[in-house]
Amino acid sequence: MKRSNRIVALTDYFIENPREQIQLPYFTKIYQASKSSISEDLDIIDYMFKHEGLGYLQRSAGAAGGVKYIPYNSKEKSIRYITELCHKLEDTSRILPGGYLYMSDILGDPKQVRQIGRILASAFSHLDIDVVVTVATKGIPLAYAVASFLGVPVVIVRRDPKVTEGSSVSINYVSGSSRKIQTMVLPKRSLQEGSNVCIIDDFMKAGGTITGMKSLLEEFNANVKAIGVLAEADDEEDERVVREYTSLVKITNVDMMQNYIEVHPGNFESNCSKK
Amino acid sequence: MKRSNRIVALTDYFIENPREQIQLPYFTKIYQASKSSISEDLDIIDYMFKHEGLGYLQRSAGAAGGVKYIPYNSKEKSIRYITELCHKLEDTSRILPGGYLYMSDILGDPKQVRQIGRILASAFSHLDIDVVVTVATKGIPLAYAVASFLGVPVVIVRRDPKVTEGSSVSINYVSGSSRKIQTMVLPKRSLQEGSNVCIIDDFMKAGGTITGMKSLLEEFNANVKAIGVLAEADDEEDERVVREYTSLVKITNVDMMQNYIEVHPGNFESNCSKK
Repeated sequence: MKRSNRIVALTDYFIENPREQIQLPYFTKIYQASKSSISEDLDIIDYMFKHEGLGYLQRSAGAAGGVKYIPYNSKEKSIRYITELCHKLEDTSRILPGGYLYMSDILGDPKQVRQIGRILASAFSHLDIDVVVTVATKGIPLAYAVASFLGVPVVIVRRDPKVTEGSSVSINYVSGSSRKIQTMVLPKRSLQEGSNVCIIDDFMKAGGTITGMKSLLEEFNANVKAIGVLAEADDEEDERVVREYTSLVKITNVDMMQNYIEVHPGNFESNCSKK
Repeated sequence: MKRSNRIVALTDYFIENPREQIQLPYFTKIYQASKSSISEDLDIIDYMFKHEGLGYLQRSAGAAGGVKYIPYNSKEKSIRYITELCHKLEDTSRILPGGYLYMSDILGDPKQVRQIGRILASAFSHLDIDVVVTVATKGIPLAYAVASFLGVPVVIVRRDPKVTEGSSVSINYVSGSSRKIQTMVLPKRSLQEGSNVCIIDDFMKAGGTITGMKSLLEEFNANVKAIGVLAEADDEEDERVVREYTSLVKITNVDMMQNYIEVHPGNFESNCSKK
């Protein structure tokens, strides 16, 4: 098989299997190529992934030698995307009752969701995450996108007790915005004790939902390593109960009466710089 | 830029942008290559996509000339995957009360979900789908996977009326398995009148939920072009109310007392042959 043909197959393999460790003999066997040919292929792919701001190949030495694709959105690409997103969201027809913003068109587009997931996954790339946790319903697609780039599974916390999955753990929590008592449930077998967890949601107001998830995760002795949201509401009235998180955009001003809305980049960029 | 470098970037571009029509001058400009060089690159990628059972490039003639990547899982690959899935599901520890099956590990794994989505999208590849519709909660990840390969958005029907998205249409329906009256809601602005729709869900028993979705979609004058589910339950007691659908696996026998379960391939293969 010619190099250019091999490169199509290898590129596809890496994109479909992020963060999976593969031994070189696997490729030499499938493509009937020498180890040095495959090694040169990997150099080319690694160079181009970096060049296109997609990530890089992590090589490991040793008898067989392994390789792993780490997706990583370059900071420039991420910030460009976030800036465009802010403009898109500053459309007054998006204003919904209660200070919410219509984002279902963006969250309903698999390509946009994948892009947002790629950016958040890049921010948490170094954190050794075992599992992504979200709460039904709107955060689910984003959680899967983040998880796919981190190469980990997703666990979905439910708000309804109608769980048909055997014994489960539930907690009551106070929703920050509505001050109502609500319930969250997670089946016992869905999460291993002591997992390193990344919480993902679409929107954070005062942070009550995320605080609820944190309490529920404590019951599983999970370590919440990261919290990522697409949008946060800059609600001065409520005191934010969650401090450590990464947001892509911040909705600072929603005025239904004046039909006015302001959207700024979230803390993603400043969080990136801290590292 | 060398051919092998260009091929990495082009392969990534196609995988990330399925079913998007791209004019060749777009590529010649970015990669500063002649139209004939890009055209040869595309021949190689098309050959390899077919060779690996991933799909093909659809070229169009004309002044500029365009190209589109159509993901298409080969039938052999799909059937191999379905057979493996059946074995995986025939694990008695998966049996849940009510004849349900624990599938959250599979539906929680983004890679498996993507694979299932690729298979269903291939089955509906010729149907000119505008949008994928699912109902909260468990079908959501699968709906996104199917939609990403069809290059269309996802619309999520909610079971709770707590929709903060402006005016909405709701219907009551009778759940086939529990015989209870339930509600489904869809915000008006989320679906265009007259859309070609593909309904996706994780599990179908008698089909009450899917029938409910069909009624709701009638209110939007949508054309339900396809229905795809991961698993169907072969429940002889209930008469199935949905006739036209594609399932990957069929759970034919769940016996909690005897701790026994049988899982067979669904109608995917016979549906494929009909075409």
